[in-house]
Amino acid sequence: MRIAIIGSGGVGCFYGTRLLRAGHDVHFLMRSDLETVRRDGLHVISPDGDFRGPVNAYATSADIGHVDLVVCSLKATALGDARALIAPCVGPDTHVLALMNGLGVEQSFAEWFGPARVYGGMAFVCINRLSPGVVRHFGYGRLSIGHFQDDLDAAGRIAALFRDAGIQVVVPPSLNVARWEKLAWNIPFSTLSVTAGAISTQQIIDDPGLRSVCRALMRETIEAANAEGCNLDADPLIDKMFANTATMGHYRPSMLVDYDEKRPLEVDAILGEPVRRAQAAGLDVPHLDMNLHLLSMLDRLNRGEVV
Amino acid sequence: MRIAIIGSGGVGCFYGTRLLRAGHDVHFLMRSDLETVRRDGLHVISPDGDFRGPVNAYATSADIGHVDLVVCSLKATALGDARALIAPCVGPDTHVLALMNGLGVEQSFAEWFGPARVYGGMAFVCINRLSPGVVRHFGYGRLSIGHFQDDLDAAGRIAALFRDAGIQVVVPPSLNVARWEKLAWNIPFSTLSVTAGAISTQQIIDDPGLRSVCRALMRETIEAANAEGCNLDADPLIDKMFANTATMGHYRPSMLVDYDEKRPLEVDAILGEPVRRAQAAGLDVPHLDMNLHLLSMLDRLNRGEVV
Repeated sequence: MRIAIIGSGGVGCFYGTRLLRAGHDVHFLMRSDLETVRRDGLHVISPDGDFRGPVNAYATSADIGHVDLVVCSLKATALGDARALIAPCVGPDTHVLALMNGLGVEQSFAEWFGPARVYGGMAFVCINRLSPGVVRHFGYGRLSIGHFQDDLDAAGRIAALFRDAGIQVVVPPSLNVARWEKLAWNIPFSTLSVTAGAISTQQIIDDPGLRSVCRALMRETIEAANAEGCNLDADPLIDKMFANTATMGHYRPSMLVDYDEKRPLEVDAILGEPVRRAQAAGLDVPHLDMNLHLLSMLDRLNRGEVV
Repeated sequence: MRIAIIGSGGVGCFYGTRLLRAGHDVHFLMRSDLETVRRDGLHVISPDGDFRGPVNAYATSADIGHVDLVVCSLKATALGDARALIAPCVGPDTHVLALMNGLGVEQSFAEWFGPARVYGGMAFVCINRLSPGVVRHFGYGRLSIGHFQDDLDAAGRIAALFRDAGIQVVVPPSLNVARWEKLAWNIPFSTLSVTAGAISTQQIIDDPGLRSVCRALMRETIEAANAEGCNLDADPLIDKMFANTATMGHYRPSMLVDYDEKRPLEVDAILGEPVRRAQAAGLDVPHLDMNLHLLSMLDRLNRGEVV
């Protein structure tokens, strides 16, 4: 299958090279890493086996042209550019998978390309880009892939591509529920790792005070999800997330890595949109709201946008 | 009157030199600044008139001996040392004024020295210590001085000393109410200036999100005060504090200056004790509680206490 990876950061390179190794015809859109990758190839270091070799790398989507599947793994902060970057790859029968963080991405994709071809994916993976063309996969890798309109057969066909490439994949009955479930981890750990002083997940769970803040953020996120009919069971979900996180060690979430490297943070997709939806549903979410405003200021200060 | 200034930071030096200029016999206990001040004198730069000259500076309280009034202007983080530093200056008729931040200080002083001689003071002043022996007063300077048991006559006599030295002084009917009222400024502005990324009061009030967080912190503080019978009227008090703060410009609260200089922050006196009292009264104070845990982690990270 002919596949375009739009946004070749850590996630795009990891899953793209998995699909490549499984025999697919994969094309990577690259920006800052393009010259390095063309010269030295791509290097993905992983406990599941390294990838090292040349790949098809492009500066523009028009050079890639139509494909069967677009995997869009841009940062949510680049959502404004996504339409122009994806459109040249979309032919009549192209499927578009938004392998991105946060809420609201598929809604935009559905408006641009029509809902029937749009899928959303969530990567449960610990991965960082180390340097141009070099990505380090620390562990995990499970994908959750749903169709925008919850067409389970369609989602199953996209999921099968990744499963056949050796990736663990689940197809959730509802993409929206799955999005919220992922946020119930991402909101506390990704955003607190920045607002509590640039610390690892382990430092959060080792501190009794931050642990309680983390729990409160999870609870408010789950309440917001349930206000949209998600029907999540808070206590077991919270316990499961703490247990999973304890196995990660001193993991620095990608939001913290972005912060360290002074890149824009996915504030709006990960925290802004959930807070808007919670407040629109009439919920009081003081921890989410406060963390949003702190994170937004830290993000802007970090990039010299506030003086 | 013979007066000891225990803790000669910005506040101690500013008020101490005012009392000195008014003709009192003032003795400063100093630590890191002692040698510089003995050699070069003390320098207080102020829009109300500079002070520059020699002062009586000591390395130990025993060298000062008994005085009529102890002004304790230690940081609240040094409360554990306060008793030993003050005791050598306390004779049978000595009054002790805790010119310190936060809640709970006078309770300790009353246990140590007896309640009848204990006073609490709050300084509404913008002041920073620039370098050893050099203090800069940016403006304001009003004191609020109360007696531990709300003996208004006794408080009035201490207040008169400062008033005669050209300081604006009020004697509040209740020291506890006055403490809480000051916290309603200190909690939002001092603690947010650190947790929102080391920013000035102006940057807080210029940001709509942080302004709303600031307002929520004030409101919870006032609710906690009222749970102790303070009977504060939230809306006018909040409006007055925003209006006053708007006149301060890009002021960096002393907590932020301490943070910049990697000194311990007054986390417990300014935020920990108020949160404990609020929760003991059965109140839900999510913004205060979250800010406490963030501030506590930032303080420890800043001093290398968390790795």
